Amino acid sequence: MRIPIDCDSSVPLYRQIQQFLREQIRSGALPPETRLPATRDLAASLGLSRITVTNAYAELEAEGLVYTRRGSGTFVAPPLPDLPTAEGEPSAAVEWPLWQQRLLSQTWLPVHGGLDRLMASVTRPDAIRFSSGMGAHDLFPLDEFRRTLQDVLRRDGAACLGYGDRRGYPPLRTTIAQILSSQGTPTYPDNVLVTSGSQQGLGLVARLLLRPGDVVMVETPTYSAAIDLFRSMDVRLLGVPVDEEGMQVDRVEDGLRSSRPRLIYTIPTFHNPTGSCMRGRRRRQLIALADRYNVPILEDDFAGELRFDGCAQPTLKALAPPGRVIHVRTFSKMLMPGLRVGFLVAEGPVYERLVDCKRVSDLATSSLSQCALEAYITVGRYQAHLRRTCQVYRRRRDAMLEALARHMPPGTRWTSPRGGLFIWLQLPAGLSASQLYPLAAEEGVTFAPGIVFSLCECPEDHMRLNFCVHPPDVIEEGIRRLGRAVERGLVDSGGEAALVPRQQAVVV
Amino acid sequence: MRIPIDCDSSVPLYRQIQQFLREQIRSGALPPETRLPATRDLAASLGLSRITVTNAYAELEAEGLVYTRRGSGTFVAPPLPDLPTAEGEPSAAVEWPLWQQRLLSQTWLPVHGGLDRLMASVTRPDAIRFSSGMGAHDLFPLDEFRRTLQDVLRRDGAACLGYGDRRGYPPLRTTIAQILSSQGTPTYPDNVLVTSGSQQGLGLVARLLLRPGDVVMVETPTYSAAIDLFRSMDVRLLGVPVDEEGMQVDRVEDGLRSSRPRLIYTIPTFHNPTGSCMRGRRRRQLIALADRYNVPILEDDFAGELRFDGCAQPTLKALAPPGRVIHVRTFSKMLMPGLRVGFLVAEGPVYERLVDCKRVSDLATSSLSQCALEAYITVGRYQAHLRRTCQVYRRRRDAMLEALARHMPPGTRWTSPRGGLFIWLQLPAGLSASQLYPLAAEEGVTFAPGIVFSLCECPEDHMRLNFCVHPPDVIEEGIRRLGRAVERGLVDSGGEAALVPRQQAVVV
Repeated sequence: MRIPIDCDSSVPLYRQIQQFLREQIRSGALPPETRLPATRDLAASLGLSRITVTNAYAELEAEGLVYTRRGSGTFVAPPLPDLPTAEGEPSAAVEWPLWQQRLLSQTWLPVHGGLDRLMASVTRPDAIRFSSGMGAHDLFPLDEFRRTLQDVLRRDGAACLGYGDRRGYPPLRTTIAQILSSQGTPTYPDNVLVTSGSQQGLGLVARLLLRPGDVVMVETPTYSAAIDLFRSMDVRLLGVPVDEEGMQVDRVEDGLRSSRPRLIYTIPTFHNPTGSCMRGRRRRQLIALADRYNVPILEDDFAGELRFDGCAQPTLKALAPPGRVIHVRTFSKMLMPGLRVGFLVAEGPVYERLVDCKRVSDLATSSLSQCALEAYITVGRYQAHLRRTCQVYRRRRDAMLEALARHMPPGTRWTSPRGGLFIWLQLPAGLSASQLYPLAAEEGVTFAPGIVFSLCECPEDHMRLNFCVHPPDVIEEGIRRLGRAVERGLVDSGGEAALVPRQQAVVV
Repeated sequence: MRIPIDCDSSVPLYRQIQQFLREQIRSGALPPETRLPATRDLAASLGLSRITVTNAYAELEAEGLVYTRRGSGTFVAPPLPDLPTAEGEPSAAVEWPLWQQRLLSQTWLPVHGGLDRLMASVTRPDAIRFSSGMGAHDLFPLDEFRRTLQDVLRRDGAACLGYGDRRGYPPLRTTIAQILSSQGTPTYPDNVLVTSGSQQGLGLVARLLLRPGDVVMVETPTYSAAIDLFRSMDVRLLGVPVDEEGMQVDRVEDGLRSSRPRLIYTIPTFHNPTGSCMRGRRRRQLIALADRYNVPILEDDFAGELRFDGCAQPTLKALAPPGRVIHVRTFSKMLMPGLRVGFLVAEGPVYERLVDCKRVSDLATSSLSQCALEAYITVGRYQAHLRRTCQVYRRRRDAMLEALARHMPPGTRWTSPRGGLFIWLQLPAGLSASQLYPLAAEEGVTFAPGIVFSLCECPEDHMRLNFCVHPPDVIEEGIRRLGRAVERGLVDSGGEAALVPRQQAVVV
């Protein structure tokens, strides 16, 4: 125990020990039945005589805060009835240092944090949540994974628990390269960097290429945690609207010319939150523009392989000249987010720089997660799991589309995505998603309000619905509840709704 | 398979498919025996007629690049003898985009990356490595951990594989708070943020509080990956020398006044690389100065609990007023680095901001790692493992000190740390650690040259030796080899050594 002792103080040493321990016991930091260090050990570790510590313990015992059990040591006593123990952080008006107070005004307020709090506010135990950004976890073969993990630890032992290769566990990088190549994006293991989910991939690229004040071109709406990432770095965002064919690329050149962005961040395939998929021609145009204006493209392919119908679009990475596109993906949506394994693919000098950035960020990704994943996935097993996942997700998407048609009042519109996880819904005129949220929560259903994907603070009549996490019967019930909430919202907003001018939002 | 197809191109569609696949096969991206998609499936996914794909496959077969096995599909053929397959990235003079070329001159060169390369250059299979920054992994009860992990996955299943609480798995935060409180740093679970190792803790604080051009006060020498972290952010470093009582705090006020640093980064207890431990009086002075100049302190306590003898010093966190110090720690040095679990403790508004930063960095730390660790450690088990680790490390430190006394030529000096992992050694006059490195590698021993911990590029006559990773007999042999290398180095530098003026380096 490292107790702060001040030898120059006028307070006797045993009193200092007594006061320190008393404070910890009263605050609950040392809970009842905690064994205090033996007097001999504590004295030795503080460089004091044993009698000093014995005196301190004796005083604490006299106060009723500790008790001695002969032969086994000194323990924290159960709380006295009239002495309530504090719970959690002492909230009594603490004066935080000035630099902390400044922090409040200087830093950005995360949009997604707001969503978390909103979601946490819904306490109905039977609430049906369409707000999630996750894939379905009921499809994951947990038992099989557990056995594999067991085998790996038995076989490789401590090798799974060291730092490992900075760029990622080599056999896993090989498997990743094979999966990507088999999907039409030729990839070499030496261009793969394993990351802690795709979020870290985005973060590494942002930190390497951006400095405060730089401009980043993004789709609007876009992935909320990417907005937060860029805002946290004091980077300015330039939004390009999305329609049913993805980013409106004909608007890109103006932006490139006038704002000279340092990076284009895009989710071309099964875009989050709209579900739209960028057409092939636009993909080529975007790459040509990025080439002409010498801007790197950060391609977020978080759900590109979750395609249910329609044509497969090539990745930007596969279309572009070498070194133009940095391609970021994750295993979280299809396998398990809790493993926190994603990866990026990059070519040229930027690859080694990203490895350096990874190193200063967190040294390496968990070898345990990487070894477990590598042992579990082979190209064949991965493709089989992908096929099965796509089948299930397609059924769930269809279930949600049918339920929406049944339960939504006229004036509501939504997208019919051909892959991914999300449907993007626009409410009838005059109704905002944020206003609707408490009504929906009362009915027992949640969604992600459009405002968290938006670049501005303007009221939003859109919402994102996750169709893949629940089975069809739950989806039906959830959308029924949502329909009821929308009806109630329309009644509440009364005749006013008709008077509010229809917002010129982009509908995909 | 998402093959880039250009419908507007004058190249026939089947040719486009053929060319794409040919390139992948020749480059090795599609290795021999890979099964190509069924023609029906590929045609459907590309939105083309089946005959187009069949034609493409037929052409590839005619080229000898694929073969068909009746009833099971089309496969990549083994390579032709006169067609060497490329390995790894095609290194043929690729012209990287301009923004990539600029990157090379704009970004920092990591010091530690150099160490990695240096270490990798030593290929003798019997090399004894004292260069590592890790703890000993032979002490970790792997079997027990494996069984616990198995139980946890069986019990909690999918719960271990979701994103979980942003701040970290709540039971783990509770255990961490109890361990810290029991060690004399009163801590509440609500002030604990679980991170991917302590490196991420440092990174989050740096990214929240620093902007390019800001000044950070650090010890010199200091932890190399912290130097890299700050340099990667274009932050300026202000070094305060270290002696045997830690950071020379009497030099701090001048620096605070003249350079107005935004952060003080310190490793007060068993400093990396010197092993020194800051005395209690200096700790109080440092806190008082940070208070007066309103500068946050980032306390890196990576090995603070690994104490073998001498008095226990309180953490800065325990000594300071609430909210002044951000305390960063890791489980990597004592348990397993491969889990990538560390944590930070912070109070006040800065805590929530750090949670936000964590979110944009990588959403959350691996729940699998956290659940496994939580199931494995209890306060009692942790303290028992800590006791055992300290006993073993102490014996290894003693073995290294004795071996140094036996084998080092006169003029060599080294520290006698009372805890931690490292001994800091100064070579006899005129001999630089970088010059010595190849000689030592020849003899079959490695060390971490002082230059990687240094703020300047000046030649360095220091080295860091890790005493905890090897058992005593290996340490004895390794230091014998090092002694031989130093003797050779002295002979090589000849009479010159005596003429070179002794460098005024700080020896702790």
